[in-house]
Amino acid sequence: MRTIDIKEIEDIALGATLLGAGGGGDPYIGKLVAIGAVRECGPVTLLDPEEVPDDALIVPIAMMGAPTVLGEKAVGGNEYKTLHRMISQFFGKEIYAFMPIEAGGVNSMLPIAAAARLGLPLVDADGMGRAFPELQMVTFTIGGMRATPMALTDEKGNSVIFDTITNKWTEELARAVTTSCGGSVSVCLYAMTGSQLKEYAVKNIITRSENLGRAIRTVKEDADGNPEAAFFRATEGFRLFRGKIADVRRETRGAFNFGKVVLEGIGDFRGRQAEVDFQNENLTATVDGTLVATVPDLICLVDTETFIPVTTDALKYGKRVLVVGLKCFEMWRTEKGLELVGPRCFGCDTDYVPVEERAKEVSA
Amino acid sequence: MRTIDIKEIEDIALGATLLGAGGGGDPYIGKLVAIGAVRECGPVTLLDPEEVPDDALIVPIAMMGAPTVLGEKAVGGNEYKTLHRMISQFFGKEIYAFMPIEAGGVNSMLPIAAAARLGLPLVDADGMGRAFPELQMVTFTIGGMRATPMALTDEKGNSVIFDTITNKWTEELARAVTTSCGGSVSVCLYAMTGSQLKEYAVKNIITRSENLGRAIRTVKEDADGNPEAAFFRATEGFRLFRGKIADVRRETRGAFNFGKVVLEGIGDFRGRQAEVDFQNENLTATVDGTLVATVPDLICLVDTETFIPVTTDALKYGKRVLVVGLKCFEMWRTEKGLELVGPRCFGCDTDYVPVEERAKEVSA
Repeated sequence: MRTIDIKEIEDIALGATLLGAGGGGDPYIGKLVAIGAVRECGPVTLLDPEEVPDDALIVPIAMMGAPTVLGEKAVGGNEYKTLHRMISQFFGKEIYAFMPIEAGGVNSMLPIAAAARLGLPLVDADGMGRAFPELQMVTFTIGGMRATPMALTDEKGNSVIFDTITNKWTEELARAVTTSCGGSVSVCLYAMTGSQLKEYAVKNIITRSENLGRAIRTVKEDADGNPEAAFFRATEGFRLFRGKIADVRRETRGAFNFGKVVLEGIGDFRGRQAEVDFQNENLTATVDGTLVATVPDLICLVDTETFIPVTTDALKYGKRVLVVGLKCFEMWRTEKGLELVGPRCFGCDTDYVPVEERAKEVSA
Repeated sequence: MRTIDIKEIEDIALGATLLGAGGGGDPYIGKLVAIGAVRECGPVTLLDPEEVPDDALIVPIAMMGAPTVLGEKAVGGNEYKTLHRMISQFFGKEIYAFMPIEAGGVNSMLPIAAAARLGLPLVDADGMGRAFPELQMVTFTIGGMRATPMALTDEKGNSVIFDTITNKWTEELARAVTTSCGGSVSVCLYAMTGSQLKEYAVKNIITRSENLGRAIRTVKEDADGNPEAAFFRATEGFRLFRGKIADVRRETRGAFNFGKVVLEGIGDFRGRQAEVDFQNENLTATVDGTLVATVPDLICLVDTETFIPVTTDALKYGKRVLVVGLKCFEMWRTEKGLELVGPRCFGCDTDYVPVEERAKEVSA
């Protein structure tokens, strides 16, 4: 058990944005929401998963929708309270703690704000260890857990409870409502017991985010003249490409941001070309037409000078970036994991090969 | 209090289809569902609204979606029970009786089936006195009543509860879910007390449907050599056109059937042309370019020989029909009524003029 205060929030937001793999929303918006709540209501207690009683009711809280819309709409004032009431009423039981469902600039921060405002602790765990675009794409689905009862509310005061036959149907129906509500909403889903949490969650992901954030922030101090090498050491990342953004194609469809970014190589990658496809999050990276990383491994773009992650909604022509590959949570590499979030789940007709193998292609 | 058995169902379905004004679904499907339930579970008790206790919980039940889809998907076995459980749990109170929300081939029949299967009575009242395409278009909205909590379930077993800030938002969100569920679902909404029912419902609409149905069925017996005149006498309808269907344009969009039917005059209308626009229900009728009827009055197409109503999903090239205008429920002709269901609510830029006035244009 420890405390999250404003200085922790800065690092968590930065690290979670890297783990967002391009998605999860704009950390600037996320930080404003979390810092505002902590400043007003005080710091948040962070529980290690092992500290949670087995029968406690733990509820992930998140925003759902297209990251570009999240940034414009943000959250109103009553969503957390509404969601809390809906879930407590449904179970006839008080919520013991909130938790995030995924990493990312907004979805790592919103649970902190909710916990601060409602005076509840937060659990140091999530359901992805990164961000994914669809709500059934969580380790909890592997554990046979249901997304429903799922509570959804918008900033206008509309609210909906879903009870569906599969988590894919939850995604279908909640996505339709999200679109109708203007493209982003606040949700609670995968309410679970402490023992389910301990078995299936990605543990200590908030702490990992904070450590990554601190590493990015201080990389130049520890750089020994080579900050880029220091960055890859600190993040345990694979260096997939270094280039300048030459083209960004983007489409918002079904409350998702779909698109592709084309990079022209710079430095040691001069004369080569990379492409990164995304659906909210980055899905695949190719260098000169060869795949160098795919989901579920993390493909992250970071600024070549500051190493600050560049989310898919912030891609801009001319920006210089490094393409970084990070290993995903081990549960995603199992057969069941790949059935849920492997390349084919995103329309990419290829087998999954771990990034540490694919990355060898880069210099080939 | 009286009983609805199989022979009443035949007449109610026929009359309700006329009042469906082109919408409300295929009465053949509706009858199958209602007759099947009554045959299996026994006849249904029909309550006059005045027999309902003031504090009783009365719940309209209906199918939502495009009539063409209703016909193909019909209902599974568990929807009524699921909706009953959802609504009872929400209010912590038993449902006293079901009622229909609108007239029409399916939505007059489904409440009979639900009442039979769950052993509940049915109230002789609805919220439209006809059919309308959107769910906020009920007399209850005029009475300031809320559509939510609205329960929705599909034949696969997905279910959703909505709680919205306006009835128009209920329509928005429920329509999105209906589309995602494949185009039609079963719903309960506008749960109300007996006293609200007595103040705002369209009373004795089931009895009116039955009387209209019987009149259509027996019109040739009482015809005195002129069945058409007998039909208009019995229905108190206005004779707007007699013609042959020359063109049908149809589009299913947002879980609605939109379209237009073009008629070439026959008999005393030879050489003239009529057009009827629809959104599930018929919205406007013109003869030689002049409006002869608009919503909220009822525009019904019936077969020239049998006087059986032709719904918008059954329009076919070459069919000979009469275009019939019927006065709508008086509450629709008030200022508040026209704000909700006047011609402008359907994109038709004209003031409302009662059908009895407009019909004078026909022979002009």
